[in-house]
Amino acid sequence: MEVEMDKLVSLCKRRGFVFPSSEVYGGINGFWDYGPLGVELKRNIKEAWWRDNVQMRDDMVGLDCSIIMNPKVWEASGHVGGFSDPMVDCRASKERYRADQLYVFVYIFPAVNHKGEPTEAWLAGLGASPEDAAEAPEKRAAKLAKKFGKPTAPPTVIPYMQIDVADREKVIGPSTEDRGTLTEPRSFNLMFKTFVGALEHESNVAYLRPETAQGIFANFKNVVDTARVKLPFGIAQIGKSFRNEINPRNFTFRSREFEQMEIEFFCRPEEAPEWYAYWRKARFEWYTSLGLKSEKLRLRDHDAEELAFYSTATADIEYAFPFGVSELEGVAHRGDYDLTQHMKFSGKDLSYFDEERKERFTPHVVEPSAGADRATLAFLCEAYTEDEVGGESRTVLKFHPRIAPVKAAVFPLVKRDGMPEKAEAIYRELKKHNNVYYDEKGAIGRRYRRQDEAGTPFCITVDSQTTTDDTVTFRDRDSCRQWRVPAAGAAQALRDLLEGRSIPEGA
Amino acid sequence: MEVEMDKLVSLCKRRGFVFPSSEVYGGINGFWDYGPLGVELKRNIKEAWWRDNVQMRDDMVGLDCSIIMNPKVWEASGHVGGFSDPMVDCRASKERYRADQLYVFVYIFPAVNHKGEPTEAWLAGLGASPEDAAEAPEKRAAKLAKKFGKPTAPPTVIPYMQIDVADREKVIGPSTEDRGTLTEPRSFNLMFKTFVGALEHESNVAYLRPETAQGIFANFKNVVDTARVKLPFGIAQIGKSFRNEINPRNFTFRSREFEQMEIEFFCRPEEAPEWYAYWRKARFEWYTSLGLKSEKLRLRDHDAEELAFYSTATADIEYAFPFGVSELEGVAHRGDYDLTQHMKFSGKDLSYFDEERKERFTPHVVEPSAGADRATLAFLCEAYTEDEVGGESRTVLKFHPRIAPVKAAVFPLVKRDGMPEKAEAIYRELKKHNNVYYDEKGAIGRRYRRQDEAGTPFCITVDSQTTTDDTVTFRDRDSCRQWRVPAAGAAQALRDLLEGRSIPEGA
Repeated sequence: MEVEMDKLVSLCKRRGFVFPSSEVYGGINGFWDYGPLGVELKRNIKEAWWRDNVQMRDDMVGLDCSIIMNPKVWEASGHVGGFSDPMVDCRASKERYRADQLYVFVYIFPAVNHKGEPTEAWLAGLGASPEDAAEAPEKRAAKLAKKFGKPTAPPTVIPYMQIDVADREKVIGPSTEDRGTLTEPRSFNLMFKTFVGALEHESNVAYLRPETAQGIFANFKNVVDTARVKLPFGIAQIGKSFRNEINPRNFTFRSREFEQMEIEFFCRPEEAPEWYAYWRKARFEWYTSLGLKSEKLRLRDHDAEELAFYSTATADIEYAFPFGVSELEGVAHRGDYDLTQHMKFSGKDLSYFDEERKERFTPHVVEPSAGADRATLAFLCEAYTEDEVGGESRTVLKFHPRIAPVKAAVFPLVKRDGMPEKAEAIYRELKKHNNVYYDEKGAIGRRYRRQDEAGTPFCITVDSQTTTDDTVTFRDRDSCRQWRVPAAGAAQALRDLLEGRSIPEGA
Repeated sequence: MEVEMDKLVSLCKRRGFVFPSSEVYGGINGFWDYGPLGVELKRNIKEAWWRDNVQMRDDMVGLDCSIIMNPKVWEASGHVGGFSDPMVDCRASKERYRADQLYVFVYIFPAVNHKGEPTEAWLAGLGASPEDAAEAPEKRAAKLAKKFGKPTAPPTVIPYMQIDVADREKVIGPSTEDRGTLTEPRSFNLMFKTFVGALEHESNVAYLRPETAQGIFANFKNVVDTARVKLPFGIAQIGKSFRNEINPRNFTFRSREFEQMEIEFFCRPEEAPEWYAYWRKARFEWYTSLGLKSEKLRLRDHDAEELAFYSTATADIEYAFPFGVSELEGVAHRGDYDLTQHMKFSGKDLSYFDEERKERFTPHVVEPSAGADRATLAFLCEAYTEDEVGGESRTVLKFHPRIAPVKAAVFPLVKRDGMPEKAEAIYRELKKHNNVYYDEKGAIGRRYRRQDEAGTPFCITVDSQTTTDDTVTFRDRDSCRQWRVPAAGAAQALRDLLEGRSIPEGA
């Protein structure tokens, strides 16, 4: 089903998955907090990534670098020089636009007004492509057409950055009616800058890392020297990164502070294509293994003109979010670009000596780079379901059990006849191994709904039959099917279900 | 035993626990990276904290806030106004000192030189107390005494900040021979500052959080409204914080980027003293439960003059590091100070309505605030041991199994007779549940030593007896005792050992 973004955002707020950061102070654009359910969901996703990509493998080690590094790292990586967006300000509206997303539509009208103007209108529109940008200028042109007649031809479309400086004064910005309010495009570095040490002096400038990857390259030699690794091997890291986005948007998708899960997988140059193919497939399958099973998950290979100059192949793992198809993870064959840059800028030898073949060379690298917040958002979108149960509509988050924040909820049907005590005993037992929840408040139907909204896969209810045969009712979140399990076997039954055992036949 | 700091730092580097950040570029003062073993150690400590303090409890929920928040948070908390150190620069040496750690020793000598000077010497020393600071001035005074005779009396000691401005020109800085090189003390805010958005303008200033606690207070209302919590309850968070320390030191202990594990526990005002006592004890015991058993772990109550003005009681959990007794965690009864401040600055009502008693009030809070890096360092110090095994000295990290980076290593005694295959099969089986390591290189004794240095609690060896009776040798890291276990039961035996079962008698 299609989830609407506003419904999801509202559920996230209402149930404590995601809050706007510092909301009590009016928030801060581009920053988000994870609430009690959200923090467990995101922790489970990160934990699954770490376990599957680091601990379960023989060829991967972990790393945890500082967010603030020596600024030379970012000179070598090219971020100081090149990690910037061209930006245009509107003097009238105070809006700010990415210059490469501004298009100017030049319309020629047959008539002039009594002042003799305008015969032409230079209307700016904002979008990722001229088609995206066209809507607003078309609407404005239609208004003008009432006065000046139908445009004599379809508009000429010019990217704002290609317009002659002299002509920029003619342009009417996306949110004004006036000409000449847009500034020159200027380059804006996306790294957050700060000063380390007491002096706010150029020599003390440092940056918040815009990606975790460079910390891995900077530690390549340390890891090779200390961790007894041999090619092929990878270094994996989870951590926060920061980008001073001009226009943060789409909930947690494009935020200014975000968490990455990155791998740099080092190998012999001639084996890199094979490892690229391996990781491209393995990473896609990781998402499906955790429940992104729909056709919304896609794998898209970059065409030649889209590739970074040092990359021979890159694929994006994309998800069809309600706001459009967008990147969850990029898998890139980066060649030896990064290690070579760091050798050049640090003057240190970062080559690798292959003991078996007695060869020294610079390894090539395949980089699967995932966003933890984007993955979390995709899992939320995929899980969000509205359906009907017994004639009543319900909202349910159909999380894979491995990432569900709460694995099971335990209820006494009513607050008497020893049911709360029995239920609590089961709760205590289950809690030793899993994040479980106890609830004795309100009608049982409402309690089920609350757990459905939290994405809890199983509910376990102590009811009147429990007092006679010592069994409890298990209830499956997705199908709402119920079946009975001996109370003493509840922990094992839950463990089996969480590990993927099917619900009993005929339940 | 006493661990020497340089030995520990060296082991941490050599075995991939901790590297200086961006070392390939000469590092950056006050920042550290965790290597392959370190990241697993620290992850285990954080995971133990989360599990014991959040998931195993009924009265705690988690949270994960952004590092950059609306700056008004830090106005309310007092950090913009007051989170600063007074600082003095030396114009000659370019050194920078915390003014409150500078003491001036005024010596009077009996003689004068041929120029008639000096009869007195104002020598500055640096230290946490006059006693700490005395050594360097004493040495310099001893030198002067050779020329001018023995000082006529013990020196007068004056804190630098109390010296008259006119007299400051007489002071000889800690690392110069000249007078008058020290600047006036000036206030230096310890928060890292950056700009959010494209303009480097006062209106866009934001800070890297200097503590995670305020994010919890800022979300108090959101959590109360969405998480169905009732007093008493706590909100817990793990995350990075940043302080622009003038003088980072003592390895990872005082760094500029660090990770906190903080709880704000909210309760009725009259119940706060009881909860304070509870958390003071519970948090101390958490460290002992993970192996900080020695007398180096201490609990120290603040005296009245040490307390923050809003706190009625605070205790520090301290550890006797090689560089001195220092704070691992503070447990503070903070009253209603924080919520009241945020109500004042945000204009929002952050009071709590007690449904049962029909009362509205501002909860009091008990804050156990721990440092993840400090805990990691304490566990490393406590674990570090040098002993003798079979006449050979060894270095061993005696980690509690729960935090050990690697839980077990599996070895074939030699690389033939099917031993590697058998060992690898056991390794695969164990790896499903635990972080285990496989090693077939080098003499068995060396392999044991390597695992001892990594802190791996158990080694499992496939040897020639395995081929006859299908048993393997288990070896205990701390006692070096060995015993045999059926190969098929190795996984269960390891599980039992990790959960605390004793090593078999007579092994």
